[in-house]
Amino acid sequence: MAAVALGFDTLRWERDGLVLLEQTLLPAEERYVRIPDVPSLVDAIVRLGVRGAPGVGCAGAYGMVVAVAGAADAGEWLRRLDDAEATLEAARPTAVNLAVGLRRLAARGRRLAAGDGGPAEWTADLLAEAKAFHAEDAALCQAIGEHGAALLPARCTVQTHCNAGALATGGIGTALGVVYAAHAAGKQVAVLADETRPLLQGARITAWELQRAGVPVTLQCDGAAGSAFQAGMIDAVVVGSDRVAANGDVANKVGTYPLAVLARRHGVPFYVAAPTTTVDLDCPDGASIPIEERGGDEVRAFAGAAAAPDGVMARNPAFDVTPAELVTALVTEAGVLESPDRAGLTAHCAAASSG
Amino acid sequence: MAAVALGFDTLRWERDGLVLLEQTLLPAEERYVRIPDVPSLVDAIVRLGVRGAPGVGCAGAYGMVVAVAGAADAGEWLRRLDDAEATLEAARPTAVNLAVGLRRLAARGRRLAAGDGGPAEWTADLLAEAKAFHAEDAALCQAIGEHGAALLPARCTVQTHCNAGALATGGIGTALGVVYAAHAAGKQVAVLADETRPLLQGARITAWELQRAGVPVTLQCDGAAGSAFQAGMIDAVVVGSDRVAANGDVANKVGTYPLAVLARRHGVPFYVAAPTTTVDLDCPDGASIPIEERGGDEVRAFAGAAAAPDGVMARNPAFDVTPAELVTALVTEAGVLESPDRAGLTAHCAAASSG
Repeated sequence: MAAVALGFDTLRWERDGLVLLEQTLLPAEERYVRIPDVPSLVDAIVRLGVRGAPGVGCAGAYGMVVAVAGAADAGEWLRRLDDAEATLEAARPTAVNLAVGLRRLAARGRRLAAGDGGPAEWTADLLAEAKAFHAEDAALCQAIGEHGAALLPARCTVQTHCNAGALATGGIGTALGVVYAAHAAGKQVAVLADETRPLLQGARITAWELQRAGVPVTLQCDGAAGSAFQAGMIDAVVVGSDRVAANGDVANKVGTYPLAVLARRHGVPFYVAAPTTTVDLDCPDGASIPIEERGGDEVRAFAGAAAAPDGVMARNPAFDVTPAELVTALVTEAGVLESPDRAGLTAHCAAASSG
Repeated sequence: MAAVALGFDTLRWERDGLVLLEQTLLPAEERYVRIPDVPSLVDAIVRLGVRGAPGVGCAGAYGMVVAVAGAADAGEWLRRLDDAEATLEAARPTAVNLAVGLRRLAARGRRLAAGDGGPAEWTADLLAEAKAFHAEDAALCQAIGEHGAALLPARCTVQTHCNAGALATGGIGTALGVVYAAHAAGKQVAVLADETRPLLQGARITAWELQRAGVPVTLQCDGAAGSAFQAGMIDAVVVGSDRVAANGDVANKVGTYPLAVLARRHGVPFYVAAPTTTVDLDCPDGASIPIEERGGDEVRAFAGAAAAPDGVMARNPAFDVTPAELVTALVTEAGVLESPDRAGLTAHCAAASSG
């Protein structure tokens, strides 16, 4: 497979420091900021300067290195390691990838500090561990992308929703990873991106990163997808997921389910691209997935401009659930699972963890 | 049926002048503006201070009276009448109701000027004609509302899209007329209103007028309707229409078709409320309805707030077409036509025009 050249980095380690693409400035400005200390990283995570569970996980891993760098002695090194683990985990308690990354780096750090050498060597070894964590996330994205790209015709338009892109991960993304891998493989792939109200991740982030990577992208309002299906403009829907239940039901950004219903009506395949870590075999079905209900102000305003009467009631579920029967296939790093159900998912995830 | 008390006027004749609710200030401010002359009305129409084909039609009819009021002699009265007809029609060439109202008032004016009396008497008679035109529009809305209200259960939530409300007509509206009539009849009706991107008529106008009229309304992003159907929150969908083709296909604001597809999947009735003048028997089907494609800036921003990268491509169809097979019933002033098709629509419209 050809390498994917995006033209931007979500995050990178550069000249002994962590550098993040400041996503709150997108799409107006592409600015990279250096993260000098743990409080700066907490701030970046809280205000969504870096976002997406895998992306935040990678940033957190590097943050552990930032924390210990320059410690004067073993005691200070270990104290900083412990403090950073607790402080960073509290910055985004729901993102499992962050906790996983922090725990792995902290465990490695404690093993290092129990052995030979001193703080400078331990820091260098810890950086190697963070880079490995980052590389593993990038490899997951690459594998998902390549498996998914094989499903797409040589010339196609992919409908997506929200941002399951490079800017949400340490690699080329999940849903957009499929697009980037197809693009790199020489397929003529264009993307129809829903703007994704209320937070407009599609307009702000997906459109930006595809444009930056040189993939043709057309933005539309969420309600306009129906007429695109009717016009035969859409060859496949590819979305990410926040959680896949054991029966194959898929939770993703609100507005995903209507796309799945439209795709079925129009005979268009509906693909979900996500790592196997997104599959929650302990969650029996979509009804068991808690759906975050967010504040109504996000609905009553648009990009900071008030759009509705003060105090009008608003419902603002952050996610919806697409039933498994509407999912053509789940694409993970382990391959393509058609018509996911409990038996298929159990076997697929077992294969991934032993692979 | 109980009278509907909205608590606001879209337009009214007051102390010898036309007064409009300035809709560009909604939802922040409810301000009524006096229209002193024809250029002021043209300006109000062009910048959507008054909007909706029936609403603009009523404003235009009163505008003819504004034009001739105070004319010094018969020659000036007639000259002003002719000028106003041409000037006002050019302000919104696509809205058929405006041309219909202007032609009717102009014809009445010419008949008056060919008879007895003088400018002052003719102006008074022309005002009576404009008031009759307005009252007929209000009566159409009331009839649509009452026929539609009878379809709703005693306690229900109605999903709507865009604004087919009092603010688009000279009466209680079409889709929202159904809601207001049910409310006035003592039914416990609540509305779930899509915000309706890109121009947010749902957030800005539908939410405002329902709130003002005391009907419980909850706003949601367009993509959130799917999860509301899944949760069983929606008892009926009621929308307006810009054109109904002879086979029953319905053009309405983009985002309507996905609602119809969801309604069918969830066994929820999908009603279209519109006067019979909306039915175009010369238009064979939805594929023959031209769909306006608007500029991409509406998608890339709202109210001056940019949301997407400069220059990213955007598709922005203003309308979509819902196929007749998804329409449970068409509700007009002549009654309820279930499963509209060519034969049914032809008979229904014939009954309306002879009624």
